Amino acid sequence: MAGLDAFIDEIVIANRILAAEGITDAYGHVSVRHPDRPDRYFLSRARTPQCIEAGDILEYALDGTAIDPQGRSSYLERFIHGALYEMRPDVGAVVHSHSLSTVPFGVGGEPIRPMLHNCALIGASVPIWDSRGRFGDTDLLVRDMAMGRDLARAVGFGTTALMRGHGSVVAERGLRRAVYVAIALQTSADLQRDTARYQSVTFLSPGEVERCVRMLDAEEGRPQQGIDRAWEYFCYRACVAYRPG
Amino acid sequence: MAGLDAFIDEIVIANRILAAEGITDAYGHVSVRHPDRPDRYFLSRARTPQCIEAGDILEYALDGTAIDPQGRSSYLERFIHGALYEMRPDVGAVVHSHSLSTVPFGVGGEPIRPMLHNCALIGASVPIWDSRGRFGDTDLLVRDMAMGRDLARAVGFGTTALMRGHGSVVAERGLRRAVYVAIALQTSADLQRDTARYQSVTFLSPGEVERCVRMLDAEEGRPQQGIDRAWEYFCYRACVAYRPG
Amino acid sequence: MAGLDAFIDEIVIANRILAAEGITDAYGHVSVRHPDRPDRYFLSRARTPQCIEAGDILEYALDGTAIDPQGRSSYLERFIHGALYEMRPDVGAVVHSHSLSTVPFGVGGEPIRPMLHNCALIGASVPIWDSRGRFGDTDLLVRDMAMGRDLARAVGFGTTALMRGHGSVVAERGLRRAVYVAIALQTSADLQRDTARYQSVTFLSPGEVERCVRMLDAEEGRPQQGIDRAWEYFCYRACVAYRPG
Amino acid sequence: MAGLDAFIDEIVIANRILAAEGITDAYGHVSVRHPDRPDRYFLSRARTPQCIEAGDILEYALDGTAIDPQGRSSYLERFIHGALYEMRPDVGAVVHSHSLSTVPFGVGGEPIRPMLHNCALIGASVPIWDSRGRFGDTDLLVRDMAMGRDLARAVGFGTTALMRGHGSVVAERGLRRAVYVAIALQTSADLQRDTARYQSVTFLSPGEVERCVRMLDAEEGRPQQGIDRAWEYFCYRACVAYRPG
Repeated sequence: MAGLDAFIDEIVIANRILAAEGITDAYGHVSVRHPDRPDRYFLSRARTPQCIEAGDILEYALDGTAIDPQGRSSYLERFIHGALYEMRPDVGAVVHSHSLSTVPFGVGGEPIRPMLHNCALIGASVPIWDSRGRFGDTDLLVRDMAMGRDLARAVGFGTTALMRGHGSVVAERGLRRAVYVAIALQTSADLQRDTARYQSVTFLSPGEVERCVRMLDAEEGRPQQGIDRAWEYFCYRACVAYRPG
Repeated sequence: MAGLDAFIDEIVIANRILAAEGITDAYGHVSVRHPDRPDRYFLSRARTPQCIEAGDILEYALDGTAIDPQGRSSYLERFIHGALYEMRPDVGAVVHSHSLSTVPFGVGGEPIRPMLHNCALIGASVPIWDSRGRFGDTDLLVRDMAMGRDLARAVGFGTTALMRGHGSVVAERGLRRAVYVAIALQTSADLQRDTARYQSVTFLSPGEVERCVRMLDAEEGRPQQGIDRAWEYFCYRACVAYRPG
Repeated sequence: MAGLDAFIDEIVIANRILAAEGITDAYGHVSVRHPDRPDRYFLSRARTPQCIEAGDILEYALDGTAIDPQGRSSYLERFIHGALYEMRPDVGAVVHSHSLSTVPFGVGGEPIRPMLHNCALIGASVPIWDSRGRFGDTDLLVRDMAMGRDLARAVGFGTTALMRGHGSVVAERGLRRAVYVAIALQTSADLQRDTARYQSVTFLSPGEVERCVRMLDAEEGRPQQGIDRAWEYFCYRACVAYRPG
Repeated sequence: MAGLDAFIDEIVIANRILAAEGITDAYGHVSVRHPDRPDRYFLSRARTPQCIEAGDILEYALDGTAIDPQGRSSYLERFIHGALYEMRPDVGAVVHSHSLSTVPFGVGGEPIRPMLHNCALIGASVPIWDSRGRFGDTDLLVRDMAMGRDLARAVGFGTTALMRGHGSVVAERGLRRAVYVAIALQTSADLQRDTARYQSVTFLSPGEVERCVRMLDAEEGRPQQGIDRAWEYFCYRACVAYRPG
């Protein structure tokens, strides 16, 4: 697994960034699909994101079976990740969190929509998934593939969904983008809360959303632009070393 | 008292965590029932929580008498703790604080209710105790066992109560749970403030509250899950070393 | 001036605390009446509070004349301090700041009132002074004794006043109390903002305000209680060494 | 370019300050007109502001052509700067940012107005520029001189403008003033959000705005007063060494 070292390190950094930005607290997790085996993904053992190290990262089959756990316990909700990788071959990284900024929208039934150009990647309107709809009264945890698949259907072809009474999920093509979108979702929630006092708000138009997304797509690979410039910023704030993507 | 050293250290850590999370400021305190003598509890001498060290922890009888104070002064409101231990044999730890997030609910007369799954331990609805009801105009401090018992009755069989114009109290079976619930109460208050703009909010249903509580109960003892994972997170933020529970 | 060294150090600490608590930003100042000469007070040269050192503290006559400035420039608004010392022999320390929490109340015309027991020292209702009333369109600075005296009249026999479009002032009997009240004013403003959504709020009753003030008055001199315990907390947060009062 | 070293260092410091104050995040930039060649300006290569060093600063012609980029990439939106320098010979420094406090006002269509004396430099009312008006659905970036000039016209003879769905721009005569105004704009936005609950708010009168601006103008050059005292404060918070202006 030596060739995967840098890959694993990137997952550790993603955990530190999500913690530093307040996306995760004691809970929440981020996974990446295995670069060589699309039927596998990497995810930490059950541990608070702030503290995760390379030795905590485990490999999973899509159904949530840990390949070589060596006694380490797994996140109860790892099925969120497997279900999204199963349903969406284009998805390479998944973030699940309880970002407190987003929770009010889930319980208030208000979709989050982007009003800032660099938040367009959250999608034109963030769907709200309610586990109670199909599964009734539960402890709200996504404890099996059936619940994970139901959530994945709510995400659909998009990148995000809120989970009522629980948090949110982000599905993106790569790790840095997934982290970027998780933070953009939190930012968009904060902004939308602060515009609740207006009778009318100019959200990004569908055409603007499309062009903003295309702009971020087109620039991938160009060092220091867009997603990668944000990654340097997040690394700085999380006190971890930055490597160009 | 050598065998109690680790036990005392845990109280010091709890004080640091409560301070780091903004639950306590210059005021507020956390106690633990004596593990061997249920008619005694441990509580710091009167000192700001952020600064408390092992040498500050005193032993008290339930009526608030310090066993061996050696000239150190006591919190005026230690009766909060004794009254709860007296009335509730199941209670092993108590937190009293002025968490600013919760104060508006006490003076506005709005019960805090859980809307996030991992906040279910605060109870389905947090009662509000008003010292003025039975004791009239006072300085609002719980200065004797009569006031402490009145407050304990407001907590009832629950885990929390707000104190109008003053703060809140948490009674839980153990120290880590009490700290966890004090933070969950603050989080719930922040979330409820941010949903005040909605005409209708989906709080956790009674069935969801019950299942979320059971989930946290069932997992106790399993390292790195639930309460204990949160404790590692809180330790990290408070810059104190973490020991599994 | 050797015997005054500890006294001067305390002013430096007060500046650091006010900065750490966000009461002052680049502006704002705190003074103390001379312990031996009631017609003099100590105040820093014009400098941002966060950076003030013992060598910056100057002595002033009540009319705002610097005794020995040695080329150091004075705060334009030092007359706030002199006017309060002149009119109120009981006042031993004054804080002037632009605490952003309080500004909305000044421009909205809403008096701040205490709703938390340990904020009672701000007074039952904080008056709002508007320089425009008597002085018309100005740059809002208190540039002479006439304006300072007008502001002092607004404070009256109380401890606080808001200054419309500008900030606030606190007049207390000693330095630690003045700092305590400046922070309590900010806390009260934050709480009152967060209760604006309620039709009715239970503020402290007049009897409660009186008893809470008496409680804080009575305990002065007792180490680790009330004001002094808060001072230790503030010192900790401002990263300065604590000395019992 | 040796004689310019201190000048370049000041740009680096400005970037650190804007990052520390939350004006910039991963994006945003600050430029200064060349002191000897008014048809040139200095601006960092495309990099997150928090991380910028002296070696990142490039020289640009007003049309946005980098003079000697040596392979370093440029901000896509550098035309904001050139267009303002071209249209306004009095402008010596420009800040563009996405300060989250200001975004709600841009999308809500509410002009920001000063209510605190030391925020008067933002102007009596901040205009809102909407790129959609003349350029339709875009990715909202100011990608050429035509868009830059349209934005510059919205700024007019003032010092600030909001950019709908995007952020804001500040144009001032010097670097320290531009940074000061960018922060004052953010402060004013925060205050105006916190007064939205009032039916009527006393903003600064036109006469007060004029006098407050004159006050800050008149004192330039006097060490430790006004803008310069704020600069020392900002340096302290950004952990960079302070030099009097």
